[in-house]
Amino acid sequence: MHLAGGRLREFARGCDVLGGGGGGQARYALPLAAHAVELTGPVPVVQASELPSDGLVMPCSFLGAPAIGAERIGTCREAATIRGHVERHFGRPVVAMLCNEIGGFHGTASVALAAHAGLPMLDADGMGRAFPGMSRVSMHLAGVSPEPVVLADEHDRVVAVHADGDGWLERMARSVVVGFGDRGVSSEYVMTVEQAAGAVIDGSIAKALRIGELIGEAKSVADAARAIAAEFDGVVIAEGKVAAALPEPGRPTPATIEGTGPDHGRTLRLEVGHEYLAVVEDGQVLATVPDIITVFDTYTGEALGAGELRYGHRVVAVALPCPDVWRTPAGLDLVGPAAFGLDLPYRPVVAP
Amino acid sequence: MHLAGGRLREFARGCDVLGGGGGGQARYALPLAAHAVELTGPVPVVQASELPSDGLVMPCSFLGAPAIGAERIGTCREAATIRGHVERHFGRPVVAMLCNEIGGFHGTASVALAAHAGLPMLDADGMGRAFPGMSRVSMHLAGVSPEPVVLADEHDRVVAVHADGDGWLERMARSVVVGFGDRGVSSEYVMTVEQAAGAVIDGSIAKALRIGELIGEAKSVADAARAIAAEFDGVVIAEGKVAAALPEPGRPTPATIEGTGPDHGRTLRLEVGHEYLAVVEDGQVLATVPDIITVFDTYTGEALGAGELRYGHRVVAVALPCPDVWRTPAGLDLVGPAAFGLDLPYRPVVAP
Repeated sequence: MHLAGGRLREFARGCDVLGGGGGGQARYALPLAAHAVELTGPVPVVQASELPSDGLVMPCSFLGAPAIGAERIGTCREAATIRGHVERHFGRPVVAMLCNEIGGFHGTASVALAAHAGLPMLDADGMGRAFPGMSRVSMHLAGVSPEPVVLADEHDRVVAVHADGDGWLERMARSVVVGFGDRGVSSEYVMTVEQAAGAVIDGSIAKALRIGELIGEAKSVADAARAIAAEFDGVVIAEGKVAAALPEPGRPTPATIEGTGPDHGRTLRLEVGHEYLAVVEDGQVLATVPDIITVFDTYTGEALGAGELRYGHRVVAVALPCPDVWRTPAGLDLVGPAAFGLDLPYRPVVAP
Repeated sequence: MHLAGGRLREFARGCDVLGGGGGGQARYALPLAAHAVELTGPVPVVQASELPSDGLVMPCSFLGAPAIGAERIGTCREAATIRGHVERHFGRPVVAMLCNEIGGFHGTASVALAAHAGLPMLDADGMGRAFPGMSRVSMHLAGVSPEPVVLADEHDRVVAVHADGDGWLERMARSVVVGFGDRGVSSEYVMTVEQAAGAVIDGSIAKALRIGELIGEAKSVADAARAIAAEFDGVVIAEGKVAAALPEPGRPTPATIEGTGPDHGRTLRLEVGHEYLAVVEDGQVLATVPDIITVFDTYTGEALGAGELRYGHRVVAVALPCPDVWRTPAGLDLVGPAAFGLDLPYRPVVAP
């Protein structure tokens, strides 16, 4: 399996769907990825079984203010600089890149980072969706050490942060990125291929690609939503119109979706944070984090980012089950509704 | 030679004199140093010839906002944390600490850092006085690489910065220290004992100690000033009274000293920046950076910090020659009058 050309566009669409409204929009990363692949050739996607078990898997992603990143796109060679530092630090070669966060921008951008670092991508990621925060990854639950956090900017400046406790690692990493001018690339939770087994979320790249394929094949956006839900054990929640939305990035704010067509007469409350956090109807929880709530714009077919939701949007809302690791007690502690400030029970999405 | 007890107090006085008004005041570091020595025993001061030539010399100093440092004094174990990281990075042992900046606070604090790191101090420093800026050290002129800058806080958090160009190293280091909460310890320009020969300013510790001794032995502050000038090829510029002073940290601002006693009738302009930058009388330059201009308070005997100068202070001003390395063309480029925004020629202090 390789990522390039049309497959890359399908992949980006799948990343937006899996982002559940979070992680930034893939369309901002697609030119980066396409350009990188043009320079270096298609990026191979590999399974762990194809890699030497003592080689290193290097998670890698952009860090910093999205608004800065829109103009200052970096070179993605940051990943090559980080690879060099990581190999010197651990004293062994990096054999694959891991996409930290398959959702949205970060999933798509990781192709560019892998291409410039000269690495294949492991068919996996650290979230199976998008989350804010450095430690909301499956590697954290598996006990992989996040240290050191290695950061680089596009001028080969490298900073390595060593600290006990994820809170300080993230605080220092963000402080470093501010010093870079609010944009950089970071790597943490570096592990061996052997450690990665059971510590990463398998098959995320293939899943995003398959979702992109389903969207490409569908006759309408509603059809695409139904096909994705059917193939990935999810549910189509409703078709409707955004009747109220005033997104405030970083804090849960409710939006309202009024049902249309077959769903006429229904009223849904959508809790919106960095991602779509919950859907509630008549006091009944239909879906919450960590399950993936995706809101398609029925005109453009794009999965709408949580910050993009506006009054009047015609939408189809879908909920997909999250990776199993997030449904464990430890997983729900880290990424359940309460972790995002919601006083709602977790109700796992179950396919009809 | 060892630093402890009364010798430590003499050393601190000498550090303030060599600071030329800059580097912060030694009195804020003396409790740190005294406490460290109480815990670990006297700190040996060694010559390079006593050390293995392939061992590492580790410069080390506090970084951050002085106002924060006054309350959040750190533990000085930061230096031990940094030592561990430096030894792992370079793959060889650190055999001595180098005081980066003998002047004022930093000279005195380096005793505490050495004590906690379990290291002797090399009888040398990187400035022979005080300067603002990470790269204004003799190691820079000697071509020693500043990389990596290794920073730590009092909770064993360590950050290593790798970048080409001192400007970015310092920018990133300061960004990291802000992340630490505006206070940390940093090390850069790590070198072997062999590299240190000719790259450091020899004898700085002994010189500060000797100056402290001379102050202790003198019958008056004016006597002390004369004794120091005589022994170190300097000049007593004048006794006087501060007639105007409005220090603005970071930018040269003039103060006025009106002569008193034997100097009655003279009027001196003192340019004040982070340090005392120049003394001018009737359009004649009497002394400028990089030579060391020290202003003693004749009541307390203390060398006044550039930010402490106030109207009414009775003072004796002394100028001491700087280390030879600063009088070279490259040295003057880095730390001559123009480097501090002064449009004045450098006129070396010459003993009468």
